[in-house]
Amino acid sequence: MDVKAAVAFEAGKNLSIETVQLEGPKEGEVLVEIKATGVCHTDAYTLSGKDPEGLFPAILGHEGAGIVVEVGPGVKSLKQGDHVIPLYIPECRQCEYCLSLKTNLCQAVRATQGRGLMPDGSSRFSFDGREIFHYMGTSTFANYTVVPEIALAKIRKDAPFDKVCYIGCGVTTGIGAVINTAKVEPGSKVVVFGLGGIGLNVIQGAKMVGADMIIGVDINPSKRELAEKFGMTHFVNPKEVDGDIVACLVDLTNGGADYSFECIGNVQVMRQALECCHKGWGVATIIGVAGSGEEISTRPFQLVTGRVWKGTAFGGARGRTDVPKIVDWYMEGKINIDDLITHVMPVEQINDAFELMHQGKSIRSVITF
Amino acid sequence: MDVKAAVAFEAGKNLSIETVQLEGPKEGEVLVEIKATGVCHTDAYTLSGKDPEGLFPAILGHEGAGIVVEVGPGVKSLKQGDHVIPLYIPECRQCEYCLSLKTNLCQAVRATQGRGLMPDGSSRFSFDGREIFHYMGTSTFANYTVVPEIALAKIRKDAPFDKVCYIGCGVTTGIGAVINTAKVEPGSKVVVFGLGGIGLNVIQGAKMVGADMIIGVDINPSKRELAEKFGMTHFVNPKEVDGDIVACLVDLTNGGADYSFECIGNVQVMRQALECCHKGWGVATIIGVAGSGEEISTRPFQLVTGRVWKGTAFGGARGRTDVPKIVDWYMEGKINIDDLITHVMPVEQINDAFELMHQGKSIRSVITF
Repeated sequence: MDVKAAVAFEAGKNLSIETVQLEGPKEGEVLVEIKATGVCHTDAYTLSGKDPEGLFPAILGHEGAGIVVEVGPGVKSLKQGDHVIPLYIPECRQCEYCLSLKTNLCQAVRATQGRGLMPDGSSRFSFDGREIFHYMGTSTFANYTVVPEIALAKIRKDAPFDKVCYIGCGVTTGIGAVINTAKVEPGSKVVVFGLGGIGLNVIQGAKMVGADMIIGVDINPSKRELAEKFGMTHFVNPKEVDGDIVACLVDLTNGGADYSFECIGNVQVMRQALECCHKGWGVATIIGVAGSGEEISTRPFQLVTGRVWKGTAFGGARGRTDVPKIVDWYMEGKINIDDLITHVMPVEQINDAFELMHQGKSIRSVITF
Repeated sequence: MDVKAAVAFEAGKNLSIETVQLEGPKEGEVLVEIKATGVCHTDAYTLSGKDPEGLFPAILGHEGAGIVVEVGPGVKSLKQGDHVIPLYIPECRQCEYCLSLKTNLCQAVRATQGRGLMPDGSSRFSFDGREIFHYMGTSTFANYTVVPEIALAKIRKDAPFDKVCYIGCGVTTGIGAVINTAKVEPGSKVVVFGLGGIGLNVIQGAKMVGADMIIGVDINPSKRELAEKFGMTHFVNPKEVDGDIVACLVDLTNGGADYSFECIGNVQVMRQALECCHKGWGVATIIGVAGSGEEISTRPFQLVTGRVWKGTAFGGARGRTDVPKIVDWYMEGKINIDDLITHVMPVEQINDAFELMHQGKSIRSVITF
């Protein structure tokens, strides 16, 4: 079938709106009509050419929501008309990783997904007879896409696509890091480095679970107002701190953070996030993605005296299980997504969404079809 | 009173056997007759002068066992005749750290202990009228010492001093790292870097909790036999590995260690310990003490994909609560200490014990008085 897609033909170039061909779903696959999709820094990272695993030409996009149009042979958990959010980390519930009960990093389709292909080793997308790669197993920058059944979370039908699509990545990553990875408890003191979309979701996650003190750290003071709306109790601008930011945060928390989160991707900040943690029990969680080859460092004494350094992908969430719950939380008003979606635009303007992101003018832009 | 002590008068010199003066116990303090004490790498580290917090002259030693001779005012939990193990990390059960239930790093006497003094800010030891510093709050290289009540674990009276003294540091550090810090589960795959006294105790801890695969890593093949006796199932000598030790261990464990332990103090090995862990859930615990100022590094991707980097001091054990249990385990034959104590000698030969350690000829030397 013909579908409308924003195609990334090569690194560093704008996306191109094209009519591409999409094959129907094969065994275990589902054809989804994408109704809305967010534009995320990860899409921009791959498009920039800096992602060593980036493949071109590809249809990017991994933060979508839509409706099941057709299911392939063997698909049992979904049917035509179901509303779904595609998952770039699937949940097969059968692999060693899923069964470990210790991680969300399902490996069922990892090898082919990493090569831009469906599990059978081929692509469903083509343009002028030439294969186009899938991206993160989702390729939501198209009005129709094919996704493995195990990579689709079924959600309630009254949830607005142009809001809950953000649960497909940013919302779940931030809130999930708090509840699944760090397991923040009521009364905790939390420090959040970077008040972009992820940081704001960490803040509202921390507020939801009852943290007492939620300190936001950002060099941009314009981030303060919205962060406070989301639950930030204290704001620290490193540029306005005399001396060491770590000492400042340890002082402000009277001994250190119980939990800290790095939401930037800066390896120096990752170190600060660890070292501002409380001796004995502070846990630093890395969410941001550092540049290729960059390393984090610290003195081992930081760990020997009880701090813990960990990281998270997709907030430790098991997509099919957890994403529908987060959609419910949004619909019940427990979390705020509306204020995070600063721009909505048709797919024809998708390059503007990247531009707004690069200029720091958007928190999240959502594309509709 | 006059006591016999091995005094460290200055860094880098042999200990000197002297008759020193010891004041009786003050409020909250206890006079203990030390019957036996281990000689640990930490004593040697401080004696060498490399420990930036080392103080001289001091009476070193932190791995002792003995009998309560006299209790100071206000002491309620101990009485004359009780058998005890001094604790370099006390357990006051009242400070923020003890009450957190998240750490064993009781801070009740930390400031004065770090300055080589009793909690009231003075020393009980003197020599020719000159103050001698306490060490780690224990100073077990003397046949009598004064210790805060909160830094004494009461143990059963049938336990032999010249064996259970080792529970005052090495045994608890190794076994505790497994059960308290890493919380190894039955069926786990465990990698232990360094097969000295700590590593062997990690191995027997891992065996005790039912680990399936216990891999020991050491460049000295002579360590193999005893490690196997303690429960090691596989031995890897990095010098005999073609290529990367991390890849070798990931291969041997079919994906990586569930738990790894660094028992050397080498920052490069600390990195290997993290990176040989299983994606998604592997936990690396640092036990070894690195040189002053040295740093650990890795790519943050290691953490974002689910590995956890932590550390431990005294095996995460709450001394007054946990040490008596470990003494019971020894008496019940659940753990082996006898084979770890390779040398026993009178205090007059204590410098020989340091020499045996430096030459790698002892696992643990125990000094008797």
